[in-house]
Amino acid sequence: MKAPLLFLCLLAAASLATAAETPNPGRGPAATTKSPDVQPDRRVTFRLRAPKASEVLVTGQWANGRAALSRETNGIWSVTVGPVAPGVWEYSLQVDGLSMIDPGNPAIKPMREPRTSILHVPGQPPLIHDFQPVPHGVVRQHSYYSKALDRLRELAVYTPPGYDEQTAQRYPTLYLQHGSGDNQATWVAHGKAHWILDNLIAQGRAQPMVVVMMDGHASPPENRTNNTALFERDLLEEVLPWVNASYRVKPEPASRAIVGLSMGGGQSLTIGLNHLEQFAWIGGFSSATPSREAIAGALAAPTATGQKLKLLWIACGKEDFLLARNREFIELLKEKQIPHEWHLTEGSHSWPVWRGYLADILPRLFH
Amino acid sequence: MKAPLLFLCLLAAASLATAAETPNPGRGPAATTKSPDVQPDRRVTFRLRAPKASEVLVTGQWANGRAALSRETNGIWSVTVGPVAPGVWEYSLQVDGLSMIDPGNPAIKPMREPRTSILHVPGQPPLIHDFQPVPHGVVRQHSYYSKALDRLRELAVYTPPGYDEQTAQRYPTLYLQHGSGDNQATWVAHGKAHWILDNLIAQGRAQPMVVVMMDGHASPPENRTNNTALFERDLLEEVLPWVNASYRVKPEPASRAIVGLSMGGGQSLTIGLNHLEQFAWIGGFSSATPSREAIAGALAAPTATGQKLKLLWIACGKEDFLLARNREFIELLKEKQIPHEWHLTEGSHSWPVWRGYLADILPRLFH
Repeated sequence: MKAPLLFLCLLAAASLATAAETPNPGRGPAATTKSPDVQPDRRVTFRLRAPKASEVLVTGQWANGRAALSRETNGIWSVTVGPVAPGVWEYSLQVDGLSMIDPGNPAIKPMREPRTSILHVPGQPPLIHDFQPVPHGVVRQHSYYSKALDRLRELAVYTPPGYDEQTAQRYPTLYLQHGSGDNQATWVAHGKAHWILDNLIAQGRAQPMVVVMMDGHASPPENRTNNTALFERDLLEEVLPWVNASYRVKPEPASRAIVGLSMGGGQSLTIGLNHLEQFAWIGGFSSATPSREAIAGALAAPTATGQKLKLLWIACGKEDFLLARNREFIELLKEKQIPHEWHLTEGSHSWPVWRGYLADILPRLFH
Repeated sequence: MKAPLLFLCLLAAASLATAAETPNPGRGPAATTKSPDVQPDRRVTFRLRAPKASEVLVTGQWANGRAALSRETNGIWSVTVGPVAPGVWEYSLQVDGLSMIDPGNPAIKPMREPRTSILHVPGQPPLIHDFQPVPHGVVRQHSYYSKALDRLRELAVYTPPGYDEQTAQRYPTLYLQHGSGDNQATWVAHGKAHWILDNLIAQGRAQPMVVVMMDGHASPPENRTNNTALFERDLLEEVLPWVNASYRVKPEPASRAIVGLSMGGGQSLTIGLNHLEQFAWIGGFSSATPSREAIAGALAAPTATGQKLKLLWIACGKEDFLLARNREFIELLKEKQIPHEWHLTEGSHSWPVWRGYLADILPRLFH
């Protein structure tokens, strides 16, 4: 075991010593560097100690979310914004042009390149993605060695309230994909998928279901050209058989959905339409829609495709940069007379929209 | 739903567009900003795009872990270090004195103030904390509203391999606490407790057990003065009864352990020694040891204390800044003739030492 460096020891010492005495370990009194600091009126103060910086900005997803921090004493920068509307908002700090998480905030959006923190302002009354006093499911983290991909991978599985008690019951399964910047943890940590499910199940608006959240980045970092095909292999050869064997899920395609957003929307539409023997429910949010060639089989037999589909649900926002691509895809489905639902909504290519889409599609699944 | 800002949309567009074509979405070719980039010979390259920075350093937990990055073209800084020994190492980037995570690395040490990334270099053959081809347990994430603390909290529970199949079996429980900079996710994400357990259970060296990992910061950020007492309330009034009702665990104190590191070592020693009716196995790693007053009851009846204890296991490293405090605590136990084990080891106040301590104590529990 290597002896750690002195500076780490000293950091730990400072942190431990102050933890017992001050609100903000290792950084002096809380008033000076607490960030984000949410007041009861929903105004929010951001603070950063950066003595050598020339410019510090916060760029947030809430309305008028860009603000310059001002330099105070001791090299601490701060700004108070808002009131900020209830929601789960992304933000970054820009320090002399370098985009970074807020180091005062433990809530980080899980990303391949983490530069984004989370500001969660609960609603009064609670919003559909807020934690509410209802029965709660569990999110399970699994590490697995994918033989198909020859490397260690991670996935998350939501099981609904009661899963561990009602040991005779079997559940439908939703395979839920993230976008290109994200990973298997993002739908829970940032999308609040688990709380949306808890709330809709408690309201009797969604079927209790098992939700499988994989890492959508299946190709190695050196070569991303074949990602959807590799993801499909990992899903169909490894994960789906393992889920069927390990979780109490219903085996038939009428009890299995595949849904995703952006890159994951493209994966869900492509894999779903090519594997209607596995998935009868398919959804795409702000999708990187597949080409004609990528779903040639489904298009070549549109009547059979329509008969196997329980639901093909596609949504995109009016300000989404993928709107034209989604409109083209809808035209293609119309041309082939493949039954589908098309939801043109307000909003853009962003998580506030996708949380809403998840809350919209869940009540439609498995009826 | 608020319309997101244009810059977020453009970021997403850039990320999505490049994801299909280049190895490093939104940042150009991988060769320029991939970080950390681990070569087969275990040399590691760190890279950061920071055009306006004057100085960029990497400060890592491996041997000779401090290195300056050099400015290359396009405002990208880089340095190659090592070979780095196999291990799970912490590191930060220091950009003009601002300590931050490596934004190229999705592996972040869960902390109250996240400034630390994780570089995991697996061993050949695998180390005790490496993922190995053995049966694997599951880590379950729970959100709960603590009535004792009147706020939303998070905890993680490890269940051993087979837990979901062997539905008649009951297991012993380990309550495992983190240090003052960390949170409920740190023992898994950084400590690799789940893999240490998987490996020791597979080797027949540890009993299959349920491990409960709470958030050790029970007091509100405004006032941390009473943290151990508040943590004890949350543990004993909320979490322990809930675990006993929700998980198939054995109810008697001889099947329950409480162990922690640093601040969490202090919590474990204090709560354990004050509640021998709940915990017969107690361990402290590099502990912020309790005062005489904090464990006055156990000290006042040392014979009864010794009779109830199955194990009191205390370890500290020779370079740990808490060594003197631990030695004093050992002297106190000797003075009172309370049976204990004292492990004076190599190393300092750091996670490489604590992973080793966990691997050392687990085989001792529940025999």
